[in-house]
Amino acid sequence: MKNINHTIAIIGAGIIGTSWAAKYSVSGYKVRMYDIRENFQRHIADYLKQMIGQISDNIEGAANRISYHSNLVDALDGATVVQENGPEKSDFKQEIFASIEKHVNDNTLIISSSSGIPPDIIGKRMKNPDRAIIGHPFNPPHLIPLVEICTTLSISKEKVEEVTEFYASCGKVPVRLNKPIPGFVANRLQTALVREAIYLVQEGVVSVADLDQIMLNSLGIRWAAIGPFLTGQLGGGEGGLVEMVDKILNTLIVSMNLSPVEDKGLKIIGDQTNQFYPLDKFHEVASARDARQIAIMKAQSSYPLPDISIK
Amino acid sequence: MKNINHTIAIIGAGIIGTSWAAKYSVSGYKVRMYDIRENFQRHIADYLKQMIGQISDNIEGAANRISYHSNLVDALDGATVVQENGPEKSDFKQEIFASIEKHVNDNTLIISSSSGIPPDIIGKRMKNPDRAIIGHPFNPPHLIPLVEICTTLSISKEKVEEVTEFYASCGKVPVRLNKPIPGFVANRLQTALVREAIYLVQEGVVSVADLDQIMLNSLGIRWAAIGPFLTGQLGGGEGGLVEMVDKILNTLIVSMNLSPVEDKGLKIIGDQTNQFYPLDKFHEVASARDARQIAIMKAQSSYPLPDISIK
Repeated sequence: MKNINHTIAIIGAGIIGTSWAAKYSVSGYKVRMYDIRENFQRHIADYLKQMIGQISDNIEGAANRISYHSNLVDALDGATVVQENGPEKSDFKQEIFASIEKHVNDNTLIISSSSGIPPDIIGKRMKNPDRAIIGHPFNPPHLIPLVEICTTLSISKEKVEEVTEFYASCGKVPVRLNKPIPGFVANRLQTALVREAIYLVQEGVVSVADLDQIMLNSLGIRWAAIGPFLTGQLGGGEGGLVEMVDKILNTLIVSMNLSPVEDKGLKIIGDQTNQFYPLDKFHEVASARDARQIAIMKAQSSYPLPDISIK
Repeated sequence: MKNINHTIAIIGAGIIGTSWAAKYSVSGYKVRMYDIRENFQRHIADYLKQMIGQISDNIEGAANRISYHSNLVDALDGATVVQENGPEKSDFKQEIFASIEKHVNDNTLIISSSSGIPPDIIGKRMKNPDRAIIGHPFNPPHLIPLVEICTTLSISKEKVEEVTEFYASCGKVPVRLNKPIPGFVANRLQTALVREAIYLVQEGVVSVADLDQIMLNSLGIRWAAIGPFLTGQLGGGEGGLVEMVDKILNTLIVSMNLSPVEDKGLKIIGDQTNQFYPLDKFHEVASARDARQIAIMKAQSSYPLPDISIK
């Protein structure tokens, strides 16, 4: 991995931007923050320190690598990476990306934290629209490892590798999507689940609190231990995931008024699942899953949530 | 809580039935297992011991509380609770529930592990259909805490309390659904998400392995720490969950070709979310969430998954 001493311009110092600043400064990089609010440095000082303290013992050391700028061009000076965290509006993103492009070096990575707008939309007013890259973090970025990388289809392979290496160099877990799609992956998965959750509460099947309780004590533990596809492969018996989808899931999908998984889709996921998770390794994986699940439950009980409900 | 010395008949000694036997025997209860396979005791002996060993240091002590029966009526003798784990087929469940009812005491709880068939269907051939109760575990039941309790609407309150107390007495987390629905809650949530996951792989946006990686490093950590509704309440800014659904989620839902959440639903979830999770307690909850998330990530890295993919 290239060991570059990055200078990172953070555009927009809300919760996400500030959390990025914590992560990048703790990683040893110089951080230049920009926000339109007057004296924004004072507004964010407390929670910036708190965030840094969650991931480092040397709060001052990291904080000293951060500078504050009320002028965009000033903040971009010498930046090797830009991480933009402005409002989630296409118009705003298009304008600021065109403007950033004018004031950075040819090699500077220009990245948006957008949680759902594809890069081809964000880069529309740029001279080189391939320069608009999504690095979508999960909130808060200084703690949650995932960064979804989404680029135009025409970007160079080298550029994608460069972005991936950059995030890996800060201890993030970068995953690249093969093509742009609104909402990217994690938020689409979340949305599909939350929509059903809202339906179940609306229909009076469970309360909001009971549904959260169900998640914490079942799917949450499972999905922190193994992902949904490995879950299906381990839970589908001798036929693995495909058998489970074919025999159980599709019946439920239809009763939920959704369109079922068709044969074409079954074949694609079956091939991939058997490649990544061969069924003859079942026992090895199942016992690793169990050990993880037990450790995750211990983490839950060591750090309980406060009861804050209005009785 | 009543301290009853239960005798539990396990009907069907597959993976789920055996895992229940481990859990119940470790809880100090007598367990009577029944299965149609000849010498089933020999088939399950190894993994039964393994399961008990995952939750108890006294394997022999628990194993000695388990007896094995090749005759259904014999297995039901003296049972205070029946936990049925047969094939997931309405016909089968209806017949065995009618048969069990004839051979147990008037107070015996008759419970099915069914992962999706509502109790009113399962109890159809019983003299008293209210006796058909769902106690749906998450696999494996000896480890994962959740039990979804689903009953007919006409069952007595006392009976529901009795079932709830029984599961709580074994250290399970019982959550009762207010009405029967196919798939209950956890599997409906899982199905909604997995269906979208399959779509994303089918469209070539991500691979099966990358999607699992995304889950493990984002939503999995979050949903093991806090449920989806609390997540929305904390992530929606000053307007909480309702603002997030109204301004962000619904746009994405529509672009995913699903029907959006309507005003009626928004009001119901908004009222409940503000009752259970008042926004003025934001900071207290957010820092508890962070501590949990950090602990869960440590659990993940202490217990890595084996890489088993075929290169």
